[in-house]
Amino acid sequence: MSAQPEQETPGRDSLMLRRVAIDTYRENVAYLHRDCAVYRAEGFQALSKVEVRANGKRILATLNVVDDAAIVGCNQLGVSEDAFVQLEVPDGHPASVSQAEPPESIPALFRKINGERLTRADFHAIVGDIAQHRYSKIELTAFVVASNRSELDREEVFFLTEAMVASGRRLDWHEPLVVDKHCIGGIPGNRTSMLVVPIVAAYGLVFPKTSSRAITSPAGTADTMEVLATVELPFDRLTEIVRTHRGCLAWGGTANLSPADDVLISVERPLALDSPGQMVASILSKKIAAGATHLVLDIPIGPTAKVRSMPEAQRLRRLFEYVAQRLHLSLDVVITDGRQPVGQGVGPVLEARDVMRVLENHPDAPNDLRQKSLRLAGRLIECSPDVRGGDGFGIARDILDSGRALAQMQAIIEAQGSRDFDHHHPALGVLTLEVTAAQAGVVTGIDNLQIAQIARLAGAPKVQGAGVDLLRKLGDAVRAGETLYRVHASYPADLEFARQACLRFNGFSLGHADQVPHVFVEF
Amino acid sequence: MSAQPEQETPGRDSLMLRRVAIDTYRENVAYLHRDCAVYRAEGFQALSKVEVRANGKRILATLNVVDDAAIVGCNQLGVSEDAFVQLEVPDGHPASVSQAEPPESIPALFRKINGERLTRADFHAIVGDIAQHRYSKIELTAFVVASNRSELDREEVFFLTEAMVASGRRLDWHEPLVVDKHCIGGIPGNRTSMLVVPIVAAYGLVFPKTSSRAITSPAGTADTMEVLATVELPFDRLTEIVRTHRGCLAWGGTANLSPADDVLISVERPLALDSPGQMVASILSKKIAAGATHLVLDIPIGPTAKVRSMPEAQRLRRLFEYVAQRLHLSLDVVITDGRQPVGQGVGPVLEARDVMRVLENHPDAPNDLRQKSLRLAGRLIECSPDVRGGDGFGIARDILDSGRALAQMQAIIEAQGSRDFDHHHPALGVLTLEVTAAQAGVVTGIDNLQIAQIARLAGAPKVQGAGVDLLRKLGDAVRAGETLYRVHASYPADLEFARQACLRFNGFSLGHADQVPHVFVEF
Repeated sequence: MSAQPEQETPGRDSLMLRRVAIDTYRENVAYLHRDCAVYRAEGFQALSKVEVRANGKRILATLNVVDDAAIVGCNQLGVSEDAFVQLEVPDGHPASVSQAEPPESIPALFRKINGERLTRADFHAIVGDIAQHRYSKIELTAFVVASNRSELDREEVFFLTEAMVASGRRLDWHEPLVVDKHCIGGIPGNRTSMLVVPIVAAYGLVFPKTSSRAITSPAGTADTMEVLATVELPFDRLTEIVRTHRGCLAWGGTANLSPADDVLISVERPLALDSPGQMVASILSKKIAAGATHLVLDIPIGPTAKVRSMPEAQRLRRLFEYVAQRLHLSLDVVITDGRQPVGQGVGPVLEARDVMRVLENHPDAPNDLRQKSLRLAGRLIECSPDVRGGDGFGIARDILDSGRALAQMQAIIEAQGSRDFDHHHPALGVLTLEVTAAQAGVVTGIDNLQIAQIARLAGAPKVQGAGVDLLRKLGDAVRAGETLYRVHASYPADLEFARQACLRFNGFSLGHADQVPHVFVEF
Repeated sequence: MSAQPEQETPGRDSLMLRRVAIDTYRENVAYLHRDCAVYRAEGFQALSKVEVRANGKRILATLNVVDDAAIVGCNQLGVSEDAFVQLEVPDGHPASVSQAEPPESIPALFRKINGERLTRADFHAIVGDIAQHRYSKIELTAFVVASNRSELDREEVFFLTEAMVASGRRLDWHEPLVVDKHCIGGIPGNRTSMLVVPIVAAYGLVFPKTSSRAITSPAGTADTMEVLATVELPFDRLTEIVRTHRGCLAWGGTANLSPADDVLISVERPLALDSPGQMVASILSKKIAAGATHLVLDIPIGPTAKVRSMPEAQRLRRLFEYVAQRLHLSLDVVITDGRQPVGQGVGPVLEARDVMRVLENHPDAPNDLRQKSLRLAGRLIECSPDVRGGDGFGIARDILDSGRALAQMQAIIEAQGSRDFDHHHPALGVLTLEVTAAQAGVVTGIDNLQIAQIARLAGAPKVQGAGVDLLRKLGDAVRAGETLYRVHASYPADLEFARQACLRFNGFSLGHADQVPHVFVEF
């Protein structure tokens, strides 16, 4: 919400601003009493979009009409908590309200709804209005649905990405090489960032890793890191940590990077929209805004991964590469094994335990998580001009085996603010449930989506100690009655939800060794 | 919002219901205090969709979190005014709240977003959830945008229409012949219904006409009729009037006809969405639910009408006819002249004046409105089995010329509740502005959209006496400086908005007589 110079419109009386202690979550709401003279004169309707002005600041809000003077009086202009904070004036300050002008980019939106190709200027106008919260939920949804599937060509995806970068802050680390990594998601337990960051930062490259929280998955990197350390850091503190320790593992919400992306995601998620164009724009805009010069992108393939075939992965890779090249970002796409969850645990505490075991070279450390992290770290280390192609993996392994990665991680944890967490005795949910093999066989499939859903029903990520601990993985032989995985929960209702889900689908397929699906990926 | 038997979920404490005097306009909002035990235990997020239950009723609502015990206390469950009314229990009644289950039709919605064809059962599930307010604004918008353009084939349009009829009440007049008319809209001043209803009702056919209010136009039939009579009638009163007087001219909002349509329109309008499939489903579902057996549909064509060419009109006609036939509605499509506004006035009072002048056979009655109304009325009269094709127009003219139509209208006005309106001295907005011809010439174009916008800026339809009075029409010769039209407003700000619009575009083109565009329509 930007502050613009106030232009007083004559004839619109000033009201007294009143903070209404209602949290409307990202949606600004203004409250006017039904008998308020301004309300009557303006002929507003409830749910009209209005512009609230106070002391030179302007914000847009949705109008609610109030019939109770205890909430707002006739000469008051109530605003919800979030809106009040944005206005930055005290309670009782003079304020005015008027019908909001429709966003200037609406004609371009209508053209996209009607299937037209948009120009660079159109995308900048639309994304600018979105970042300034000028779009209603209806307009936002119309934009994402109209841009879904193959409705954006690759140059339009570039325009969209560029506009999203321009909509917020763009960091400059004053370093020739700033690395980052990203996974397109969908694989439970895939916490490689928490290993790649300490390894690569220990090598000496700048790696300011910001992550999101889980929205539809049982744990995001921010949720898992939060088991070990504070992740919500003021932006200045975050940059200081990166300068001192070459890396961080923080929540990205405070940095105002590609703010239009956050707004778009708020409607994409409920609709399970994840078209290639939207994915590319979302990921690359965040990374470029964060100041990355080199990015390694992990695209897992598997029967229950987001990407299910190599041709699909290659199409996605080409779109990422086209847009990255237009935006001068050096991009290395790595296609990985997405047939099953990575590591052993699924859920914040369980995943934090796995990460710490790998850093400590613990005998129970999950080897797949270790190997994948070393390879991704190796690729990033090879961005360094003095490392020969193929040498990165060995360098990464030495850093991990020597304990330097662990020391780096501990330094980052201390800097961010360490939490009380003993990964040798992790605080797992005490209510448990074991899912066992109905007959003997070899594990021929583990369904990423079903395991994720069971972990979420058990309470993850909100309940940190909840989740699924996988005791068997693809290719393992099991006897009848042997435990496949253990579900942890903290509340009886959660355990019951998870139990019911396990009865419908337990996520495991058993069969013969030759039925284990193969994927041909680089590692 | 349907009432279902309540199933108490154990462990969810009862709260005390509290009416929160906030009007959130069609969107149910529930308010919980941040320190409320249920809020904390359930892990709701602000803006979560929740289910509120009290005394066997269930409604869905959006959650707002409150930090002020004066609005809701810790053991209270606040609900917005609309939601409170739906629950039908007194303040303080025990109530409970839980996370709402997602609507069952969401998988079908996702398939439509991904471009799949949906089945009859899918459409019934989606439309049922929409009618019961189970869709969020995001889901609603996704549905209408994904169904826009040619994304629905004609059988899907039939499924959608049928499901929309089934979503609400369907009237049965116990008459073999129930007639109705509809215009697809976009032509200012086109108030033929207010003439066709009294003519056809005087002839003796049952004509229960319900109309909407203007949303994007300067006056709807309901707005104009409201100048003369009450239009918001209880449903029982409306049926009684139709039984006594064979017709009515009422607002359709109270009858619960095709309620899903009203919900869909709430997102289609802000997006200016008006695809053929949505138009057909919206219009036909309302008419069939209203009990019509025979419908005359007016499709105006013109350079600034909704439909701009004959091939487009014919495509639309075929879609209407296909769906009408599948639903056993007898449909007569009439393609009319939409090159310019119909009649002289644009705005509720101005249009009511024109209608009354035609009914009174006043010398200043606009002839185009009279002729068009007679032809539409004639088509409807020909639905009667004892009238020969071609005879309807003459019958209608006799009814109008003899004063029987005026008497019928006066009876309907009295029955609905007459308003104090003298059409010989209509209460027009006293602030006026005249737009004159810059040079001599012949009127070669009147832009429907521009005239409508000027009338709206002047205050119509909210300000009943505001609007545009057209003194010249297509083909009229004018001298330089002669008045083309007069704008009426009641507030200086409105007049100023209209003046500024007239400076940008005044809606009139002047030229040579041979430049007047021709359209080839039946009348």
